[in-house]
Amino acid sequence: MINYDDFLSRAAGQMQGSAIRRMGTVLAQSPDIISFAPGYPAPETFAWPDFTAITQALLTGADGSTLQYGPTRGYKPLLEEISGIMAARGAQTSAERLLVTTGSQQGLDLVARVLLDPGDVVLVELPTYTGAITAFRNVQASMIGVRQEDDGVDLDALDETCQRLLADGRRVRALYVVPNFQNPTGLLIGLEKRRRLLAWAERRNVLLIEDDPYRELYFEDSATEADVRPIRADDDGGRVIYLSSFSKTLAPGFRVAWIDAPAPLAAKLEIAKQAEDLCTGALDQRVVYECCRRGILQRQIPLLRRHYQAKRDVMVEALTREFGDVVRWPAPRGGFFLWATLPAQIDGEAMIARAAANGVIYVAGEAFFVNGAGGNIIRLSFSAPTHARIREGVARLAATVREELAATAAASR
Amino acid sequence: MINYDDFLSRAAGQMQGSAIRRMGTVLAQSPDIISFAPGYPAPETFAWPDFTAITQALLTGADGSTLQYGPTRGYKPLLEEISGIMAARGAQTSAERLLVTTGSQQGLDLVARVLLDPGDVVLVELPTYTGAITAFRNVQASMIGVRQEDDGVDLDALDETCQRLLADGRRVRALYVVPNFQNPTGLLIGLEKRRRLLAWAERRNVLLIEDDPYRELYFEDSATEADVRPIRADDDGGRVIYLSSFSKTLAPGFRVAWIDAPAPLAAKLEIAKQAEDLCTGALDQRVVYECCRRGILQRQIPLLRRHYQAKRDVMVEALTREFGDVVRWPAPRGGFFLWATLPAQIDGEAMIARAAANGVIYVAGEAFFVNGAGGNIIRLSFSAPTHARIREGVARLAATVREELAATAAASR
Repeated sequence: MINYDDFLSRAAGQMQGSAIRRMGTVLAQSPDIISFAPGYPAPETFAWPDFTAITQALLTGADGSTLQYGPTRGYKPLLEEISGIMAARGAQTSAERLLVTTGSQQGLDLVARVLLDPGDVVLVELPTYTGAITAFRNVQASMIGVRQEDDGVDLDALDETCQRLLADGRRVRALYVVPNFQNPTGLLIGLEKRRRLLAWAERRNVLLIEDDPYRELYFEDSATEADVRPIRADDDGGRVIYLSSFSKTLAPGFRVAWIDAPAPLAAKLEIAKQAEDLCTGALDQRVVYECCRRGILQRQIPLLRRHYQAKRDVMVEALTREFGDVVRWPAPRGGFFLWATLPAQIDGEAMIARAAANGVIYVAGEAFFVNGAGGNIIRLSFSAPTHARIREGVARLAATVREELAATAAASR
Repeated sequence: MINYDDFLSRAAGQMQGSAIRRMGTVLAQSPDIISFAPGYPAPETFAWPDFTAITQALLTGADGSTLQYGPTRGYKPLLEEISGIMAARGAQTSAERLLVTTGSQQGLDLVARVLLDPGDVVLVELPTYTGAITAFRNVQASMIGVRQEDDGVDLDALDETCQRLLADGRRVRALYVVPNFQNPTGLLIGLEKRRRLLAWAERRNVLLIEDDPYRELYFEDSATEADVRPIRADDDGGRVIYLSSFSKTLAPGFRVAWIDAPAPLAAKLEIAKQAEDLCTGALDQRVVYECCRRGILQRQIPLLRRHYQAKRDVMVEALTREFGDVVRWPAPRGGFFLWATLPAQIDGEAMIARAAANGVIYVAGEAFFVNGAGGNIIRLSFSAPTHARIREGVARLAATVREELAATAAASR
């Protein structure tokens, strides 16, 4: 009998499964459960008839490259469309800065591999996106968290943390931020703070990894285009590595995203991608390109804003009605997530079993904190379920929390 | 001005672009060049009408999961089909051993990350597949080459090399082999040698990484189903990590492949994949599944064998006619490649400029050797060009070699 542990790399020894993906497994086993767990876009919003028409047109066989291996950088016409999207976001870019990735998760993984050696420090927000945690952990980087205020990462805490690490001789390579409708908190970094972050990165000679999948999905009752201006748009010094994606605006099943980075880094990211998957799926890239070229993406975005805003409204109303007295949250102004703080005696991770038994799941907040905090916080995604299921799910969740509070009180007596 | 070299990880510092991918760039700039460089399948063989019908049926919107995030392990019905494919190859498997990957390149990368620490040894054939070299290099593994005989890796040299490394205190983790129609040589490992390799791996306590993308594409004039039996089929001890793909039998643009590995390793590979891209494209997996379920894959395979055998014939005839006196090769019994040894004074890498000027490209053999050998060998892929272009390309290549020989002779006078 082989002991496979003897064959694992140090990185593999430290790898941990994703808490979000684990919830996917729970769900696959009990499809009747209402899931507030993964940040899935709503499939009823996908442009199905357009996708059908596009694949029909693409799969005639007239252009063999539609299903062939393609350039690692990405399908050239798509890169040109992405360049236009970046310009519309206020950031001039060029071909040598861009790389199509197989979802933004691959982007994060490539950035981690190209920048970070074991023990190198990457600063992250408290809390931060679990997918980034996984990518950074898999290269054995050291993640140090910095607390957030209502308008994003606390700059004083950030600089103190960085200074302390540098004084200890640590190599601080980058700060990772999700500036728009952060996963998991839904927070926005304020515009003034974005400019100060960039100046800070210059001063401390660190790179900024700006992960921006949700920026198109602002809610028009509480945010504007001006609020979601990327940090990258003001980056004249080449400090920012910017990631964005079509997963939330077209469909995640296509696995098409991109990185915009200073050209020397983009060249290394391309080589890292050669080893990871040679190239992103050819058909997927062409479908996404056609959605850009034909104006389908532009047509979808305002519809998606209203769709998710309405779901946010339903969830907020239900939470307020069902147990507004015991749960608190920052009002989401865009994106997919509501970040709900429960009474301090609740352990979100431990409560999952009871919640699943009651027919509802979420992601426990702990998974998003690199410092072990967040025990009484849960992330609720309102993006995928219908209005009726959001209401029913919140009712089940409220019942779960009440049961848990009663059980906790009984246990402490 | 930022010096980005200061920000690179050690792995990134060592990363090198792929010689094959570089030829793709040459080609993109001059589409009239006849390319024997990348191992592209022939798009005229793709099942275009079936792909069209399948995507039509899938993209109705009735099943939202068709374009959603999916399980990291892969689409369950596809995994069941893969299980059937493995059984047909003589290898019983199970769900906990299988993982769908985004092409076999991702499989190689995941295996490298899960097994190899910097400095760990992976033994490879001389020559070996460049994509594996890239994946192993990117985790800073140490690749040690072992010479091949006509029936594959030389077992005596293998054991001597391994013993010497162990005596030097090195950690020898795995042997990487492509047993069927190896990329680049086209060689098969003999059946007796396959069994002895497995016994050797047991004895020396190393794992076997068996990369098997070409096995279905044997040429019926010189190989049989029995000749391509995977090493994995006789692996009772859990020594073998097996990789295969739909890229060469359906289309590479779908980026769907798989790993079959001992369950504890498959579990780690799954977690590594979570960080790399969350999941393989949902639509791509469903198209591939439907091709399996509807018998399209089974219908394609015999057609592909004849298609590539005919192209092999055309290339062999042209080589013999045009410059059979100066070039030698082992007869390909399957797969996509012909491995051509030129006179010793030829430098295949240096000759690329002249070849491209004459309108033909190939991959220089050096890229496939981890020990710097192969200077006068070139890899010719006969899979993608038409018969006429194979003939014309070989004529251009023969002219190139004659010019190069004349230039070399002139320079040495």
